[in-house]
Amino acid sequence: MIGIFDSGVGGMTVAHAIEKLLPDYSLVYFGDIARTPYGPKSPKTIINYSIRNTEFLLDKGAELIIIACNSASSVATDTLRQRFDVPVIEVITPAANRAIATSRNGRIGIIGTRATVKSRVYHTQITEERPGFKVYQEACPLLVPLVEEGWLNKRETKMILRRYLHPLKNRQIDTLVLGCTHYPLLKKLIQSRIGKKVKLIDSSTETALYVKEYLKENPKTVSKQEQVSHRYFASDKTETAMKVAERIFSRPMEIIVA
Amino acid sequence: MIGIFDSGVGGMTVAHAIEKLLPDYSLVYFGDIARTPYGPKSPKTIINYSIRNTEFLLDKGAELIIIACNSASSVATDTLRQRFDVPVIEVITPAANRAIATSRNGRIGIIGTRATVKSRVYHTQITEERPGFKVYQEACPLLVPLVEEGWLNKRETKMILRRYLHPLKNRQIDTLVLGCTHYPLLKKLIQSRIGKKVKLIDSSTETALYVKEYLKENPKTVSKQEQVSHRYFASDKTETAMKVAERIFSRPMEIIVA
Repeated sequence: MIGIFDSGVGGMTVAHAIEKLLPDYSLVYFGDIARTPYGPKSPKTIINYSIRNTEFLLDKGAELIIIACNSASSVATDTLRQRFDVPVIEVITPAANRAIATSRNGRIGIIGTRATVKSRVYHTQITEERPGFKVYQEACPLLVPLVEEGWLNKRETKMILRRYLHPLKNRQIDTLVLGCTHYPLLKKLIQSRIGKKVKLIDSSTETALYVKEYLKENPKTVSKQEQVSHRYFASDKTETAMKVAERIFSRPMEIIVA
Repeated sequence: MIGIFDSGVGGMTVAHAIEKLLPDYSLVYFGDIARTPYGPKSPKTIINYSIRNTEFLLDKGAELIIIACNSASSVATDTLRQRFDVPVIEVITPAANRAIATSRNGRIGIIGTRATVKSRVYHTQITEERPGFKVYQEACPLLVPLVEEGWLNKRETKMILRRYLHPLKNRQIDTLVLGCTHYPLLKKLIQSRIGKKVKLIDSSTETALYVKEYLKENPKTVSKQEQVSHRYFASDKTETAMKVAERIFSRPMEIIVA
């Protein structure tokens, strides 16, 4: 069984992609809605929450853990890998690799939460691989609340996006990493604000593709069951979260409060 | 010692008012920054957190608890009063009473988080006291993240405020309750958007005045110490929270992570 956790419902963009790409595998998801968001919080707090979330998923039978949250991936991956015996896959490496493969002018933009941007993890991964590449980051802390409010096409959202993207536009990037699992919901707006020529890299899709490859190479890591199940757990249940979840999956969702 | 808790740093507007109005009393504050915000979460989750916060304050010597958070006041007050022996003061009653005393046309507006608005606690308190009064509520979920980002005078904040206040403006209210301890930081903008004739009721100031009255009538509830201390604890420490805290107090703050 594949285990996936996120600070809330944003990581369901990863779970949705996994359901579609890997229909033969069962998955169990945990969204930490009671403590969401992680992005503005300290690394220590995010690490503590990530350990608890992983323990929950292992308890439910997970054999592989996906950290479907850029903030947690940025600061908690090393701790989880040291602490737990199962493979831990994060969302940064797949998106960073795709950005490197995509960019032609070597100028890559990253948007994410404060925790992700502060960790500089995309910067480190990209420049270690390609020392000549330039990586420009912008923290966009208001995008998560805007997505969670469902303000996906409001004038204010467009203005706030323009404000956040303006410095990156000036840097002549040709590739932009959506470094937060909430951002795919704003993809169209982001594309029109940053310009059509800039390629957007969606960390959710890239991670699902990466997991597919990983399971092809390591087929024994996750066992297949006769009856595939997709179970969604959360530490709290709110109307807003349910709406975002149903928007991601385009279907009614059953979320079990645990 | 007076104990005060909030979901984060917003409740420091109450603590600041208490420091000024009751300089002879020691206070201990707990801000649940690791789990902030409470406003979008379920009553059950908010109640659990409120119990933990109260236990923390009692452990530090609090003899009276102030719930300096409208969301927690709305859903957790009854539980805390049943569970703990000390007096529990919340921020709703003082603001509701002041609104009743202030309004001349009996049309009162309430702005707050989703949790506060959904609880309808202001509506209940005001109409129980004055059955003829009309109470109009608007949930303003994006104001807390905007305040926490320090976007106190940005164009987007003004537009979002206009959108939230528009329905209340149409109701010809003459009194508006700032039903969230973050909102006093937006007081000027709110006043100019809702119109100069509308009286704003600040739940932070009203609560501090109420506590002063309470201690005059019940002087033995809280003991006075020779050396007054003001201690600020939080479950996490972030740069953004520190900036908001220092804006509220207009002084450098020492926050102890507990």
